[in-house]
Order: sequence, then structure tokens, then C-alpha cells
Amino acid sequence: MSGEPWACGVDIGGTRLSVGLVSESGGLAAPAREATPREQGAQAAMARLLSLISRVLANAEGKQITGIGIGFGGPVDFAAQRIRLSHHVHGWGDVDLRERVSAEFGLPVVLENDANAAGLAEARFGAGANCGSLLYINVGTGVGGAIVLGGHVHHGAHGNAGEFGHMVLDSDGPPCACGGRGCVEALCSGDAIGRAAREMGRDLSGREVGESAARGEPWAEEIIGEAGTWMGLGIANVVHLLDPQLVVLGGGVPEIGDAYLGPVRTAFRARTMPALVEPPEIVAAKLGYDAGVIGAGAVALFRH
Amino acid sequence: MSGEPWACGVDIGGTRLSVGLVSESGGLAAPAREATPREQGAQAAMARLLSLISRVLANAEGKQITGIGIGFGGPVDFAAQRIRLSHHVHGWGDVDLRERVSAEFGLPVVLENDANAAGLAEARFGAGANCGSLLYINVGTGVGGAIVLGGHVHHGAHGNAGEFGHMVLDSDGPPCACGGRGCVEALCSGDAIGRAAREMGRDLSGREVGESAARGEPWAEEIIGEAGTWMGLGIANVVHLLDPQLVVLGGGVPEIGDAYLGPVRTAFRARTMPALVEPPEIVAAKLGYDAGVIGAGAVALFRH
Repeated sequence: MSGEPWACGVDIGGTRLSVGLVSESGGLAAPAREATPREQGAQAAMARLLSLISRVLANAEGKQITGIGIGFGGPVDFAAQRIRLSHHVHGWGDVDLRERVSAEFGLPVVLENDANAAGLAEARFGAGANCGSLLYINVGTGVGGAIVLGGHVHHGAHGNAGEFGHMVLDSDGPPCACGGRGCVEALCSGDAIGRAAREMGRDLSGREVGESAARGEPWAEEIIGEAGTWMGLGIANVVHLLDPQLVVLGGGVPEIGDAYLGPVRTAFRARTMPALVEPPEIVAAKLGYDAGVIGAGAVALFRH
Repeated sequence: MSGEPWACGVDIGGTRLSVGLVSESGGLAAPAREATPREQGAQAAMARLLSLISRVLANAEGKQITGIGIGFGGPVDFAAQRIRLSHHVHGWGDVDLRERVSAEFGLPVVLENDANAAGLAEARFGAGANCGSLLYINVGTGVGGAIVLGGHVHHGAHGNAGEFGHMVLDSDGPPCACGGRGCVEALCSGDAIGRAAREMGRDLSGREVGESAARGEPWAEEIIGEAGTWMGLGIANVVHLLDPQLVVLGGGVPEIGDAYLGPVRTAFRARTMPALVEPPEIVAAKLGYDAGVIGAGAVALFRH
């Protein structure tokens, strides 16, 4: 019954619900996953989620559980502790997720955007351990971001900060899911990579294009190189503005490896002002898929 | 000999040296100015500066002077407390300005970039008084920026943050003084406005174009409108990233008034995501030219 504090971390993604126990030093115990019931609506998803959390908490074995952190895969109003929008489960935005989970388990609950949670996990326990400040970017189907300053997520005045994916890099560029044009997400995401392949007449997913690039196929290297070049420019913009200690790239696209990270780093160096800036390193995330659950736990553990 | 603490504020610009006494509540006393001796090199400039500070301190009349803050018109390495580059006085970058001024007057000295100092002044005493966080943008000959969080300037990991002027908005855009292309400064500064007029065959300064726009001359409104539209996009990018409480525009270009601020606000609204963001107000700075000296004093007063 002694030892460091633990929290229950909950990661709500478009395809999976993941839950685990997370310690103040970044340990992960009793992890469990299920598919997100996308088609059955919010009530079914909530029942599935509560049962999964209940199962994980039953494995706490004397650990001191101080709270529950939830990382949600969509925009969260952190100040109000509410989901703003849910793209993957219909009606989930109308549920008071924090209140329901807190009432069920009698524990304090903190709700956070999943990219912010993953960024906090990388800053506390992953690629950025011991970094005071970092820019975390998740490049998957979409592009999410988190700004960590002094070991805490920067939320901004209304709880909306970190939308790196909607920085505009090409004002006449391709349309973005947000309604804008030429955002980082529209130029660099897995979806954008898949679209570029289709425009070449190849009906492939972003993942398949990445695999082809990693094997050295020139047409795929070209697509991945262009996505990486835009990403490097976007990172330079943030570095000029915020001067973070480190830039960490997580999500599926950076897993392509050097065929992606090379162009990102080259464009970044070309776009930073050498006279003014000591450019931070750009590194791959370390925690992989677990960043979601570990980060969600960290959100509860390091609330203050 | 009692009352609130005061500091001596020193603003080193390309055309003027300005010095004054600044109180913790934003009062300004004993202001004095001289032309910056641009052509005579660093030794002459230093002698002029020390004599000006000496004259102002002689008028302190029992005020408790706790330190000297210097706002420098060029890139400053805040962590190292050194000038990085001086465009306006040859050799000034090689002088240990802080050490020289501190030794001369026996007071602690803090060196800061002038846009950061002005941003701090607006956040503490000007348009952003009582705002926890703001983005300050100075649009003059060039474009400077400052990010104020929790009442303090955000300096970043290496003391280089706030370079809003070198956010790239148009990757194939016009060349910038920094060596890059399509930066905010290359698209929105007074110099950029003057260049746009020359491309129309009118040999006018940015200031003259602004005056024509304020009088409603269509060719000038077009130029100012385009500069304002790019500025609105740049602000939207920062708002998505940082979610500041307020955006404050200082410097000569915003003094054009509605012919400039109108297009800035229109483009900003068009480029923010309404579903995700509660957009901050964009307002004109309040302290005018005094922001430099008041901010420099504030840098010394609110160091911690």
C-alpha cells in the first residue's frame, strides 16, 4: 500500500480504446485495449469504456490510484473540461465524459486532447525526458501538436493552444478538413500523402506510400520528401516563435524513418536563420503507441 | 526617499536613443532623447549613451532606482545577455553593453530585445493591461514580435523566441532581410509596403503609402490591404498555436488605422477555425513611442 502515486490513463482514439495504470516515474501496468465501437453511438462507447476502466482498476493490486486522466482524439476545451467535437463517435461530444467517469469510480478525472497527452508523455518520460520545453507533433491520419513549457502543456487563454496542424504554410494550397487551405495537416498528414499518391494514379494509403518510400521507390520518396519539406518549414516557423529545446515527431508517418526525417531536417535547416537561432534537434518519439495512455496518466498525475 | 520602486529604461533604436525613469505602476519621468550616432561607431555611441543615462539619473529626485533595463533594436541573446547582431551601429555587437553600463552606474542591468520590451510594456501598462498572455507585434521598417505569458516575456530555450517577423507565410515569396523568402517581414513591413509601391512605379516610403491609404486612395488601399491580409494570416497561425488572450499591434504601420486594421481583422477571421477557437481581439498598441523606454524599465523591474 505504499510507494509512488499512480493514475489510470485512458486513451480514446478513432480505432481503439486503451487503458492502463501509470506511475509518477512513467511506469505502465495492466494495459488493456478494445476496438472503439464507432457505429453504435455514444451510449455504447461509454459502456465499453467504463467496463474497460473497471477491469484495469481491478488490477491495481494495492497501488495508490490518485486519479484518472483521459486523452481524447479530438478537440478538447481544456478550460471547460469538455469535448468540443467528436469525429469518430456520434454524440460523444454531448456527453459529460469527465463527470460520468468521475461519478462511476469516485476519482478526480482530467480530460485532455490526445496529442497534448502524448506530448506530455514524451516530455516527461520519452524522447524529451529532462527537457523543459518541447514541440511535439503527431503526424498520423491528421496532424496534432502540443507545446510543453516548463514540464506542463501550454493550453493558452481559452484552452485551445497547440493546433500546429492548422498553421497555414501555403495560402492557396490544398483544402483542409478544418475548412481552411494549405494547413500543415493538408500538406503533411497521412491523408495528404495518400491524396498525393492518388493524384499520381496510385490508389494507396499514406502508410503504403511510406512503406514504398522506406524501400527506396523514387515516386514514393518524392511524395514523402515533399510532405517532409513542408513539415520542416512548419517546424522552422514554430522554432522562430517559441525557441523550444527539442522537437519530437510521433505518430505513424515519422515511423517511415530517414526517407521522411531526412527531408524534414534538411528543410528545417534551410529555413531557420543561422545568425539568430540555435536550432533544436528534431527527433523521433520514443513511447510509440503507449504515449497515449502514459500521457493520459501523466495529465492526471501532473495536473498542478 | 520612499514609495514604489523605479528603474531607468533605455531604448536603443536605429534613429534615436531614449532614456527615462519608469515606476512599477508604469509611470514615466525625466524622459530624454538624442539621435543615435550611426556613423561614428560603437565607442561614440557608448559615450553618448552613458552621458544620456547619467543626465536622466541626475533627475531621479529621491526615487528609489533599483536597476537599469536596456531595450536594444536588434537580436539579443537574452540568456547570455549579449547583443547578437547590430545593424545600425558598427561594432556595437562586440561591446559588452550590460557590463559597461552596470560598471558605470553601479546598478544591475538587464538587456532585452526592443520588441520584447515594448510587448512587456503593453502587457503591463498598455493595451494589454491585466492580460495574462498576449502576442505583441511591432510593424515598422521591419516586423518584431513578443510573446508574453503570465506577465513575462517568453524567451525560449536559447533566448531567441518571439521572431514572429520570420514566420514564413509564402514559401516562394519575396526575399527577406534574414536571407529567407516570404517571411511576415518580407510581406508586411514598412519596407515591404514601400517596395510594393515601387513595383507600381511610385517612389514612396511605406509611411507615405500609409498616408495615401488613410486618405482613401485606391492604389494605396490595395497595397496596405494586401500587407494587412498577410498579417491577418500570420496572426491566425500564432493564435492556433498559442491561443493568446489578446493581440496588440504597435509600430508605425498600424497607425494607418482602419485602412490597415480592417484587412488584418478580416483575414484573421477568415483564417481561424470557428469551431475550435475563440479568437482574441486584435487591438492597436496604446503606449506609442514610449513603449520602448517604459518596456525597458519594466524589464528591469519585473525581472523575476
